[in-house]
Amino acid sequence: MGQNYKEIAAIALARRKAAIPTHYLLPSEYLQNLPRNVTTVPKDSKHFTTHELEIIEAEAADILEKIATRAWTSTEVTKAFCKASIVANQLVTEILFSEALKRAQFLDDYIEKEHKVIGPLHGLPISLKDCMVTPPHPSSIGMACYANEETSEATVLVSILAKLGAVFYVKTAVPVAMMMMETNSNIWGETTGAYHSGCSPGGSSGGEGALLAMRGSPLGVGTDIGGSIRIPSAFNGLYGLKPTFGRFPVYGTKSGITGQDFIFSNNGPMSRSIDTLKLYCQAVLSNEVSPWNLDPKCLAVPWRSGTINPPSRKLRFGIISDNDGEISAHPPIVRGLAMTKKALEKAGHEVFEWSPNNHPEMVREMNNSFYTLGGAAILGLTKEHDEPVFGSMKSYERAYEQGEHGTLGPTKLREMITARNGFQKEYLDRWNATAEDGNQIMDGIILPASPWTAPRLGVTQTDIFCVNYTGVFNLLDYPACTFPVTFTDKDVDKVRTDWKPLNKKDEALQADYDPEFYHGTPVALQCVGRRLEDEKVLDMVEIIANALRM
Amino acid sequence: MGQNYKEIAAIALARRKAAIPTHYLLPSEYLQNLPRNVTTVPKDSKHFTTHELEIIEAEAADILEKIATRAWTSTEVTKAFCKASIVANQLVTEILFSEALKRAQFLDDYIEKEHKVIGPLHGLPISLKDCMVTPPHPSSIGMACYANEETSEATVLVSILAKLGAVFYVKTAVPVAMMMMETNSNIWGETTGAYHSGCSPGGSSGGEGALLAMRGSPLGVGTDIGGSIRIPSAFNGLYGLKPTFGRFPVYGTKSGITGQDFIFSNNGPMSRSIDTLKLYCQAVLSNEVSPWNLDPKCLAVPWRSGTINPPSRKLRFGIISDNDGEISAHPPIVRGLAMTKKALEKAGHEVFEWSPNNHPEMVREMNNSFYTLGGAAILGLTKEHDEPVFGSMKSYERAYEQGEHGTLGPTKLREMITARNGFQKEYLDRWNATAEDGNQIMDGIILPASPWTAPRLGVTQTDIFCVNYTGVFNLLDYPACTFPVTFTDKDVDKVRTDWKPLNKKDEALQADYDPEFYHGTPVALQCVGRRLEDEKVLDMVEIIANALRM
Repeated sequence: MGQNYKEIAAIALARRKAAIPTHYLLPSEYLQNLPRNVTTVPKDSKHFTTHELEIIEAEAADILEKIATRAWTSTEVTKAFCKASIVANQLVTEILFSEALKRAQFLDDYIEKEHKVIGPLHGLPISLKDCMVTPPHPSSIGMACYANEETSEATVLVSILAKLGAVFYVKTAVPVAMMMMETNSNIWGETTGAYHSGCSPGGSSGGEGALLAMRGSPLGVGTDIGGSIRIPSAFNGLYGLKPTFGRFPVYGTKSGITGQDFIFSNNGPMSRSIDTLKLYCQAVLSNEVSPWNLDPKCLAVPWRSGTINPPSRKLRFGIISDNDGEISAHPPIVRGLAMTKKALEKAGHEVFEWSPNNHPEMVREMNNSFYTLGGAAILGLTKEHDEPVFGSMKSYERAYEQGEHGTLGPTKLREMITARNGFQKEYLDRWNATAEDGNQIMDGIILPASPWTAPRLGVTQTDIFCVNYTGVFNLLDYPACTFPVTFTDKDVDKVRTDWKPLNKKDEALQADYDPEFYHGTPVALQCVGRRLEDEKVLDMVEIIANALRM
Repeated sequence: MGQNYKEIAAIALARRKAAIPTHYLLPSEYLQNLPRNVTTVPKDSKHFTTHELEIIEAEAADILEKIATRAWTSTEVTKAFCKASIVANQLVTEILFSEALKRAQFLDDYIEKEHKVIGPLHGLPISLKDCMVTPPHPSSIGMACYANEETSEATVLVSILAKLGAVFYVKTAVPVAMMMMETNSNIWGETTGAYHSGCSPGGSSGGEGALLAMRGSPLGVGTDIGGSIRIPSAFNGLYGLKPTFGRFPVYGTKSGITGQDFIFSNNGPMSRSIDTLKLYCQAVLSNEVSPWNLDPKCLAVPWRSGTINPPSRKLRFGIISDNDGEISAHPPIVRGLAMTKKALEKAGHEVFEWSPNNHPEMVREMNNSFYTLGGAAILGLTKEHDEPVFGSMKSYERAYEQGEHGTLGPTKLREMITARNGFQKEYLDRWNATAEDGNQIMDGIILPASPWTAPRLGVTQTDIFCVNYTGVFNLLDYPACTFPVTFTDKDVDKVRTDWKPLNKKDEALQADYDPEFYHGTPVALQCVGRRLEDEKVLDMVEIIANALRM
């Protein structure tokens, strides 16, 4: 048995505390009376100067432009975001302030001396999900075994972003092994939602989600294997892209289930702005960077723009407007779907009901693969340090207890792969079939990112854990991006009446809806494109966002 | 226990016999005195008319042009190839003559009526490896269990080729489960080499290899998971492309180890002409066909041309000119490598020694994965019909005997994947490092496709089975294409003297070399490119072929 997790956590927490300048902290009397929605804290706390507020409210493109024209320095920008990130300090795992400021200073000196930027992300603070390795800082991924372990090899993506000019200042919180849909671990504790502190910010990129919503970062990088970018993006009212596997480099990212490739893990940008997502994708997937020369899984496909031609052409969307055949969305989500449909139709697009064939079956296949392949990978390590097992991780524990040869043999593995490939082929054929009878082929699918707007803390540790809406597109390997629509309104989003649940779980999940409690939580959806049409997904999301603004 | 394999084989062989027009067969007196090199049989046998010989010696582009201009009909072309394929009838598993002639007639009628071709492969006979499913014909893949089983769903690639205008007339022989490097099965018996009937045509696309060399086909489609296109292409003096996975559609191909995706299986063209390979790739990977809409694993990357700019620019090749650190090539191969180096240098290109770091380790990883994942998949089926186990398949039998939970658990699987990905990253980094110190980056690697020119029949069923030179690039997923250089010459290619073997296997494999016996066997090599640079590989092979002709 290794060191007890509590001792490990104490060391990690002390390290974090020591790295925080005390004058960045909010006064304790203010902290004792925080509002439920903490996204306005920076503005309302009087803790920030007007200039700092201007910085942290700015979009990445503005920040870059101001640094490039030397209106702002990277140092002042970095300082403002360091401070803002501390206001939300439970979101942060590793604090990199001291090297961030050195780096910012270096970039400021560079621009002064060279009269040019070092790269397209010159001086921009970017927050990183904890699994992005920034040596020598630990990359705990919410596990005691890694919490204080020095790292040595930077994630390929991290090296690229650094080369492009980014400044890294924080690593953000994740749940145990990044395999939960809320952000809680035995090391760092629980992260709460930005728009509702009684709700979860989602997971596993939950620290990113809340930090971005709280203006603690202009641009974050998350990872997504079952919804880990999209779920926290949705729960915090953000844009978050889960790309097609192979578009972005993944090599050297810390994984919860190292070597698992039945479902690809992937990384992507998260932000309050769709333009920032585009800016990021363009910068990383350029010929100058050629990430395909740095990661063997990466495809030599540079980022394209203007994928919708002409830009004003009529788009044809499928929509899943109520349930996926197994789980029904909460009322505010259903309203968000209706609003989106109406806005798109008003803008001249077509929206038709898309049947979620096999969605629950695909997610079951995915979840079971995680339990089977992840049981020993995760529990073998957490047990070593006596970590308690969270409710939604019990299936991993059961797989672990069945032993190395209790769950998977070669035949089982081949059956899993054959089933997965069959689902992929079937969905592709069904998408193609939308072009039958002289129809225009479907451009994208609009659906919830989750049945919840943001679940109350802890509720996804029970039997109503549900990643149905996101997981499907991990198994299919389709790109998907979230977009905010509105907020839950207790006066409009009433409990369903005259409604017949699809099954017991559907009934329990719907029973969790409470207009009063969920009031003010963000309503966000996702738009899905065909495999490798990542650019088009962002272009479609931009069109949707514009339509919603009309 | 199912039906005994002998009964099954008798039915399959009878079906084949009944499908062969007897007047296509060579006279038995001629058959009794076949030369060792049978590639000249069509010409020397007086069995073919001058016109038939003109057809079967023609390149695909010429055939297509003659059909398109109505100088020839698809029917007469198809007939000539049907007849030529029968001259080599042990290469053929399923005979599709009757539907081929109907199809040719349809295409001839079409062109007469419409005054245009139906597609870029209008009227061209294409031979298919047996795993390409052409309903309702069985796709035995050398196994009793499938030998007489009707099929119902065409392989996606087959449907595409049909749509492009191809005529299918034969399915060609493969070894058991397509997992041997020679072509022998308990159903169809043994296929022998085209240039030397005492040698193997290689495997697993061995029927294709020999058929193409014997002018029984202008263009064949093979598959390659460890060398199965390149080995028979090399042993029969052909060009054969193993593409990067994802370039060509694979869905619906019969697999020896269904659901195995640790090493991707892939398909590609084989021909006596590099131009024919290009013609095929261009036709299949066009925007009109969009195979990425038909196969979920296929990448939306149309075939590009002119990848070397300017076409006359200096290329920089790495070469592995003697051994891969474990197995040394036979003397004629070493001579072929030296000839190629010299020819390229004379043409102004650079050729430097490339170190085969980790090559043997990667192939061991690959072979072990096949045994682990394929044991039950293959032996579970062959045992059912009491099929004897070939020597080179004994490792599969051992894995099978260890049972479903004796070889693979989740941890082992994840370790395998992590090791594989690590090898991929290391090779990529090493390739990039060729650009250090101001050097031009390496364009491609030239190396043997096998230590043998073509091994004597049966020798690869012993401990000297070796797919070292091809397997590496299946694990790395790099595109590779074979090219012919010369033929073994007993007067030049002497046994190695003053030579120290690297190990026991190396010694035994080299001891198999016998100038007298191997005289006249084809010396062919392969050229390897970076992942997804399939077009460049063919462009480089064209340059190499031209240099060798100078």
